[in-house]
Amino acid sequence: MRLRLYRTAVDLIRQRGYEGATLRDVAAAARVSPALLYRYFPNKRAVVLAFYDELSETFERRSASLEPGGRWRDRFAIALDLTLEVLGPHRVVLRALVPIMIGDPDEGVLAPETAFSRVRVMNVFERVVIEASDAPKGLAPALGRVLYLAHLGVILWWLLDRSPRQRATMALVALIRQMLPSAALALKLRSVRGFVQSADGLFREGLLGGATHRGS
Amino acid sequence: MRLRLYRTAVDLIRQRGYEGATLRDVAAAARVSPALLYRYFPNKRAVVLAFYDELSETFERRSASLEPGGRWRDRFAIALDLTLEVLGPHRVVLRALVPIMIGDPDEGVLAPETAFSRVRVMNVFERVVIEASDAPKGLAPALGRVLYLAHLGVILWWLLDRSPRQRATMALVALIRQMLPSAALALKLRSVRGFVQSADGLFREGLLGGATHRGS
Repeated sequence: MRLRLYRTAVDLIRQRGYEGATLRDVAAAARVSPALLYRYFPNKRAVVLAFYDELSETFERRSASLEPGGRWRDRFAIALDLTLEVLGPHRVVLRALVPIMIGDPDEGVLAPETAFSRVRVMNVFERVVIEASDAPKGLAPALGRVLYLAHLGVILWWLLDRSPRQRATMALVALIRQMLPSAALALKLRSVRGFVQSADGLFREGLLGGATHRGS
Repeated sequence: MRLRLYRTAVDLIRQRGYEGATLRDVAAAARVSPALLYRYFPNKRAVVLAFYDELSETFERRSASLEPGGRWRDRFAIALDLTLEVLGPHRVVLRALVPIMIGDPDEGVLAPETAFSRVRVMNVFERVVIEASDAPKGLAPALGRVLYLAHLGVILWWLLDRSPRQRATMALVALIRQMLPSAALALKLRSVRGFVQSADGLFREGLLGGATHRGS
């Protein structure tokens, strides 16, 4: 029942946008009483959190195929492809949720309330670097989190992309992949390593609100 | 009259958010009839566009003090500081408008409808590079637009920043400034120059919807 109500709600958000889809409409579409719906989803936020949960769980499960070993840059490219593969079928509803995901201080992808799903994905990106054969010493978790932030940027680009079939995003990902060897080389420089450390610290302080992070 | 109604509308968006502020409330707060208000602002979108127009005009006017000469990286740092200075007093209302600015396909900062204000600001960033004493040959306008995109990223970071008095944003700007000499050096490499050209092309194709750009 919960799954059926959830799918109906996500469907309605896709069709009408977040503001346009009311829980009352969801109940009507699912042919249940509002009271029953509220027992599973007391508000729209609960639907959004369930959606994050579903997507992050799928991403985590599928990234399990990423066994330890290999260069971090190749592993990052794989994780980035996997992200777009997992999110791909949901682009229309994600597009409708952009105002919430970015703008909402409670339901946004960086909000404390959504930490569970976020940490799940962030951990994958940390592992991408930590378990690489060329993990930079003393810098691996920080680099993983900076790559996580970069991956959020790519997702936002993809959602805003107006080119046919998001061709520009695919080209951007190819471009990033092409630049990664230079980035890996630059990491030999002390100044660039310091940049990654600082960027990670500021990301956690500024965008995650100074939340201490599990496993870091 | 127009200015008074505009200021009342922006005030109300600041207090109640974009969804929460209705034009009817604005008319009541300004003690005019809704009919009179609609003559100046037929909808909330008109208020948002006027807001972009005001901010971009102030930024353009104040950036006129940036006379030709000097290194592009110093000029970019000045333009970035100027951005935060101009937007600073409006942070609360801009925060309330994030869902619109990022998420709305019609009123967003990258939408065709807002091109007038956007091009005004983008032109300043193009001039930042073009009129620099060390403008990279054949790459100046493209680099200017990539810096414009980077500046949008900094603004978004600043709006989402949860640290006290946006300390993390100030530190990020300092960090960027510290990395710029390395970035300028990297521009000597053909691969990095190609990266800037490609990033600019994808930005225009993907995020600006392939709109041809004045003066490029």
